[in-house]
Amino acid sequence: MIETPSLVDQYCHGVLRTELGLGTFEAHLSRTEGPPAPGTTLFDTQTGFAVRRWCPPLLGLEPHCAPARYLARRRELGVLESGRRLLRGSGITTYLVDTGLPGDLTEPGELACAGAAEAREIVRLELLAEQVADTSGTVESFLANLAESVHAAAANAVAFTSVAGARHGLALAPEPPGPGEVRGAAGRWLAGRGVGGELSDPVLLRHLLWSAVASGLPLQLHAGLGAPGLRTDRTDPVLLTDFVRATAGLGTDLVLLHGYPYHRNAAHLAGVFPHVHVDCGAALVRAGAQAATVLAEILELAPFGKILFSTGAQGLPELHVVGARLFREALGRVLGTWVAEGAWSLADAQRVAGMLASENARRVYGLD
Amino acid sequence: MIETPSLVDQYCHGVLRTELGLGTFEAHLSRTEGPPAPGTTLFDTQTGFAVRRWCPPLLGLEPHCAPARYLARRRELGVLESGRRLLRGSGITTYLVDTGLPGDLTEPGELACAGAAEAREIVRLELLAEQVADTSGTVESFLANLAESVHAAAANAVAFTSVAGARHGLALAPEPPGPGEVRGAAGRWLAGRGVGGELSDPVLLRHLLWSAVASGLPLQLHAGLGAPGLRTDRTDPVLLTDFVRATAGLGTDLVLLHGYPYHRNAAHLAGVFPHVHVDCGAALVRAGAQAATVLAEILELAPFGKILFSTGAQGLPELHVVGARLFREALGRVLGTWVAEGAWSLADAQRVAGMLASENARRVYGLD
Amino acid sequence: MIETPSLVDQYCHGVLRTELGLGTFEAHLSRTEGPPAPGTTLFDTQTGFAVRRWCPPLLGLEPHCAPARYLARRRELGVLESGRRLLRGSGITTYLVDTGLPGDLTEPGELACAGAAEAREIVRLELLAEQVADTSGTVESFLANLAESVHAAAANAVAFTSVAGARHGLALAPEPPGPGEVRGAAGRWLAGRGVGGELSDPVLLRHLLWSAVASGLPLQLHAGLGAPGLRTDRTDPVLLTDFVRATAGLGTDLVLLHGYPYHRNAAHLAGVFPHVHVDCGAALVRAGAQAATVLAEILELAPFGKILFSTGAQGLPELHVVGARLFREALGRVLGTWVAEGAWSLADAQRVAGMLASENARRVYGLD
Repeated sequence: MIETPSLVDQYCHGVLRTELGLGTFEAHLSRTEGPPAPGTTLFDTQTGFAVRRWCPPLLGLEPHCAPARYLARRRELGVLESGRRLLRGSGITTYLVDTGLPGDLTEPGELACAGAAEAREIVRLELLAEQVADTSGTVESFLANLAESVHAAAANAVAFTSVAGARHGLALAPEPPGPGEVRGAAGRWLAGRGVGGELSDPVLLRHLLWSAVASGLPLQLHAGLGAPGLRTDRTDPVLLTDFVRATAGLGTDLVLLHGYPYHRNAAHLAGVFPHVHVDCGAALVRAGAQAATVLAEILELAPFGKILFSTGAQGLPELHVVGARLFREALGRVLGTWVAEGAWSLADAQRVAGMLASENARRVYGLD
Repeated sequence: MIETPSLVDQYCHGVLRTELGLGTFEAHLSRTEGPPAPGTTLFDTQTGFAVRRWCPPLLGLEPHCAPARYLARRRELGVLESGRRLLRGSGITTYLVDTGLPGDLTEPGELACAGAAEAREIVRLELLAEQVADTSGTVESFLANLAESVHAAAANAVAFTSVAGARHGLALAPEPPGPGEVRGAAGRWLAGRGVGGELSDPVLLRHLLWSAVASGLPLQLHAGLGAPGLRTDRTDPVLLTDFVRATAGLGTDLVLLHGYPYHRNAAHLAGVFPHVHVDCGAALVRAGAQAATVLAEILELAPFGKILFSTGAQGLPELHVVGARLFREALGRVLGTWVAEGAWSLADAQRVAGMLASENARRVYGLD
Repeated sequence: MIETPSLVDQYCHGVLRTELGLGTFEAHLSRTEGPPAPGTTLFDTQTGFAVRRWCPPLLGLEPHCAPARYLARRRELGVLESGRRLLRGSGITTYLVDTGLPGDLTEPGELACAGAAEAREIVRLELLAEQVADTSGTVESFLANLAESVHAAAANAVAFTSVAGARHGLALAPEPPGPGEVRGAAGRWLAGRGVGGELSDPVLLRHLLWSAVASGLPLQLHAGLGAPGLRTDRTDPVLLTDFVRATAGLGTDLVLLHGYPYHRNAAHLAGVFPHVHVDCGAALVRAGAQAATVLAEILELAPFGKILFSTGAQGLPELHVVGARLFREALGRVLGTWVAEGAWSLADAQRVAGMLASENARRVYGLD
């Protein structure tokens, strides 16, 4: 009843270029610290069940077939062909791709080609800083090169993204750090790191956030369970309140990614602050058969013009499929129920579905 | 199936006396920091959709009609007549009215008259203290006048209410402050404030809370998203646990307002402490089509004799209507489902519906 | 449709041996600080309604009959016979029994006999330490006797359990305390306590946790609302993250009990760490008619091989019945809905139901 003809995936990653066995495929279904417990498998999760529901038919198999059978068919088709079939079956017409993950993942252009879709790049701030640090000799050159890199990235990318929450936690001082503070922190960090060393210094994380804000490009902030972190409660988006208030009226949009299990707090911020938007996708991939429940919770406080779809998929094209299908079905079920109850009109429901699926993302990221 | 013939709205405000245009009406649909984001409107929220569902028929229009059409009809009838029709269509027979908000809002007597209902006053502690400060010359006279004002208010009002959570956060020291501490804080506050200056000093906020407790009148505490605050997590009702424990057995009832998104914590406190009660209304206005979900979450831990309906409405009579209708429909759906599943008997469901709708409030506030 | 033929209750207590009147029965329906508020009764709670739904038929009465009638019938049959009928009607075939509560409760052997089931003992660490302290003269003998007691308990018991969250909060330093630190804390505690004095010293609580971890026996950690606590937020399982990380790979399984209202955080830890498991029972007894909602929230992030059923029942065999029936019905409703929607296959749903009901517990606790 409720249709969403075109999807803009506002946050995802590329897919792996290599063939995967049962164990390597399974390892990409969830983000864990360690292998599955003896006697258990990550296929026995909501994400695993959702993959088995939605993906086999795209490769010519029946839904819910056994994992080994699915993977045999996947290898039979080859990683390229199965990737094409999956991505083209997802319903996604535009991918916004965070290229800041390690691993042999396809670039936005390849993803676009495989999926017969558009693709644009999202630049991950922490990786940008780490790459600049790898090639800068002094604090001065690091900071100058970083400024230049942010500026250059802003010219090409569609958004910046930050995993400050996973690196340090979101309880960061809200105001921009002063120049001396930044120089001091940069000096300590550069002195102590080897090549590829991760950035987790709170002063430098804030410097990155404010550099991104100054660029005017939308800034995506990971919150909740999106990225593996130190401790979940340190990524509660409520901790961003003062930063959000400090950046109000500057003309830069913020987008809170993931959010779950604090998605009601993220939705609240989107309701209170004009420049804040909220993601409603990646959490659904984790929630699987519960996707409609989580989506409906986001729809409590977030204005409908401030909610954006994503898959958060990384590595497996199956996750792009699952993210897109779960979103579509959950949206149809939630809005369809409200229409059936008389709470919403059908015309409003159709309109809101289009906003979440693509129109809000097109407006925020300036896509046409 | 489940009927709630009479509603006591245990917490609301008056309505605006002036005609409203599309923009001024929209601004009252939500509490935001700033205007709606470009390309969005606050009508595209759960509250906005709920207003469009329930209110047009009360003014002779079809449900879900366009906002501009609704407002044209509202102006055609005039603010007085449309207010009368809306309030009388809400099903509310008693309004408990917090008179402590600024703005040109109707007094309890006017609200009663417009709504053909009863109305009683709730006194907001912080405003009372600010008014006393405006007219007191010294610390001694301020404290003496404050004590007298609390005493006088207790004689006429039906409850006190406090927004200490929005002013400072609910993580207040649980015990009453000592007299010297209060005098010191009062001195510093009075010295630093201009006329109308807001009270946010934690010692004085605690002094007010304990003055109210001493009066024996029920004390309503704003928690969660009820009042615009510094940061949502600082209004988690769990932060009140030690204050709740300190006030147990003193004979004064506490009522936790709003609570969302921490309403499960509020419900828990109502389950553990005999003198604690929990609101189940204002959150529903924000949740709109999700009202049944939120109400059911409150009904998990809160004893059914401790849950009280409210609308939390302010400014627009539409919000009184929406609060009342969403509550009634959500209650009917939740309890009706449980009866259909065999979990509850119909007689119990009817009895509990009456308790939430009015009987609990009548008992707690001593209404007859 | 979804069947769970056999239930392993992974956490419960014995039942009272004495006849109960209306008031004493009511007091066991909920854990409160004080008697019910005037004008209210604890029968008017989800747990009270669930007891009235499921238990009267097991004693030959109609569901939802009045509490007084039910209790009259219970007394007519006698506490022993009514206990037998209730426990045998619960569907539980194995009880894991925490024997660490005060009061005249049946031992595991008696519970097994009354319920025609198996029973195994769970040892509560804090009680063990308190009993050792009661009979040890010096710090040295206390620590030596404690080590011996833990060792002896590990030989017979099926698990250890800790209420450190209720005693101190779960924000404990994650690493094991050093020997000198333990000796110092033990000296201070022993010097200050009388016979039966409760253990709440954080160093000794950590010493107990690490002693249990060293034993290799599964360690159950109370979190959320399971045990009456100082403040709910201090029992959020997210606070255990660093302890969980510190105990990863040591070969000892952790089981997070209760969890509600932070059960999504508990489920997340079970999803991330191979050795962490999550309870899905005791919260359902509190949620009553909302049990399916709470269960579904746990099923969002927790892998299906890591979720274990319990009742958390104590004192009243009615609570064992209610825990078991609510779990079975909620599981059937949640999984049945997902099958009907096509999200899960029926075969998977049956398989997962068996895992939650008994197989996961059999694997974790080494039952055969």
